Amino acid sequence: MVQNKFDLDSYLKEKSQKIEKVLERYFPSEKNYAERVICAGKYSLFAGGKRIRPILCLAGCEVVGGEWEKILLFAAGIECIHTYSLIHDDLPCMDNDDFRRGKPSCHKAFDEATAILAGDGLQALAFYFFTHPDLVKNINNKIKLLKAIHFISKAVGFEGMVGGQMVDLIMEGKKGNSKILKWIHFNKTAKLIEASIVSGALLGGATSKELKALSSYGKNLGYAFQIIDDLLDILGDEEKLGKKIFSDIKKQKLTYPQLIGIEKTKELAKKYTEKAILSLIPFKERGIPLKSIAEFLLHRVY
Amino acid sequence: MVQNKFDLDSYLKEKSQKIEKVLERYFPSEKNYAERVICAGKYSLFAGGKRIRPILCLAGCEVVGGEWEKILLFAAGIECIHTYSLIHDDLPCMDNDDFRRGKPSCHKAFDEATAILAGDGLQALAFYFFTHPDLVKNINNKIKLLKAIHFISKAVGFEGMVGGQMVDLIMEGKKGNSKILKWIHFNKTAKLIEASIVSGALLGGATSKELKALSSYGKNLGYAFQIIDDLLDILGDEEKLGKKIFSDIKKQKLTYPQLIGIEKTKELAKKYTEKAILSLIPFKERGIPLKSIAEFLLHRVY
Repeated sequence: MVQNKFDLDSYLKEKSQKIEKVLERYFPSEKNYAERVICAGKYSLFAGGKRIRPILCLAGCEVVGGEWEKILLFAAGIECIHTYSLIHDDLPCMDNDDFRRGKPSCHKAFDEATAILAGDGLQALAFYFFTHPDLVKNINNKIKLLKAIHFISKAVGFEGMVGGQMVDLIMEGKKGNSKILKWIHFNKTAKLIEASIVSGALLGGATSKELKALSSYGKNLGYAFQIIDDLLDILGDEEKLGKKIFSDIKKQKLTYPQLIGIEKTKELAKKYTEKAILSLIPFKERGIPLKSIAEFLLHRVY
Repeated sequence: MVQNKFDLDSYLKEKSQKIEKVLERYFPSEKNYAERVICAGKYSLFAGGKRIRPILCLAGCEVVGGEWEKILLFAAGIECIHTYSLIHDDLPCMDNDDFRRGKPSCHKAFDEATAILAGDGLQALAFYFFTHPDLVKNINNKIKLLKAIHFISKAVGFEGMVGGQMVDLIMEGKKGNSKILKWIHFNKTAKLIEASIVSGALLGGATSKELKALSSYGKNLGYAFQIIDDLLDILGDEEKLGKKIFSDIKKQKLTYPQLIGIEKTKELAKKYTEKAILSLIPFKERGIPLKSIAEFLLHRVY
């Protein structure tokens, strides 16, 4: 059976190594007066992230038959956006987290002003990557590239990640419900994950039917992802996570474990993972990598 | 003579009104849970800015014979970036300015977290505008649009505005020299002004010779612009400026007035303005609007 032969570890390793190389190659040189902020951006970007979002972007390209190596710069840009969002989320006036991936967070290793600017620079760098000549020449249909950038920029803006983070902060210490919590998860987390896969698929030449299936996969994976993240804040291992656990509880964050308890939350993560996997049916065996990624993420809490 | 007939006031008014309309029309609706951050973004975006950068973008398009009304969304995106940079610059850990355009700055009217997120959202919104279908359909050569976005994203990133703001902060209270100050002005201010004009020209179908001339105009105008800004911090009228004067001195910012005195700084502003205007020679009479804009900016201190 094909499924048994699939080796997720090698799959993730190959893709993340390629992403790493592109990030290193295209990151601005720190040899100028602005060295401090460039170093801060690098510090967070190369802090050992799993590169899940760019891998999903490449996988989205591959599952529709596209050449994923051609869109590495696009995938790398997505990781820049993700990293910027972590740097800003960790700031004292936001989630006030001193550690990230086992290291002092950016504003602790540098200072607040530098961290804000490093995040700003990383967001700009993402769009610099998305429009880099070395990427543009690989994409025959430039309209698709513009569409992919458009989709990402919406997913991370006021009507996406930024809006989600705002409401996540607003709801601290307040009585919430699952409707608003789902909205937060969708905006804060699921939209960028969905956009990562969909943009990769778009650049890989997906049909509209394929895009729809992958959008559903991405959304449901995104929900599962955030729910698992909330569970790990209670069940996780601090050393493995690289950050303190119980931080959501301390901050009185609105989370599913707080709302419906741990067991029901675990079931919910499983439900969304299953829904994500079901969306892959049209891809038959080609969907195995995306299926394995969804299972892999879920198994961190099962 | 044609020059006498040119009415800068009407020119600026027509263009800024069109920009205003596009910003209003395309700004996300605040009717969702994230209302707070969307309102904060709007608060700063519609605080009465002069829209100089987007006007320069439209003027850059027009001077090379392009149809400027086709690129209004692009120009509007540039204003979003400029506004985001003001919001972040005003933060307590950066320039700590409580007033902007005669109103409490964003973090004062809202709070720090909201202000940081509003800035982040505005940067994303810029790239959302740059790739909006309503703009894309107007630009026949999509590669040019991608190039214009690439140019802007570089100008506002680590190797541009973000880097410039970092060094501006680093140099507070330190002994500087004109070499490093010129670098700060170039990166913090001139690169975005240059990119505004050049991107507009690129989208308007400029030849490489025209791009070169406008790049020189933009850079020199950018230098003049920042020098005039520093002079206004000493010579300006608080009510007109909408912010306190002498703030650079209080923060021990590195500026030309501090380095070479007011009179020599005024001469420098004039010199850069003249250099900018000289770059317009190839455009003959078509360059009059850009010439008038440069003179208009200079006359705030002359």
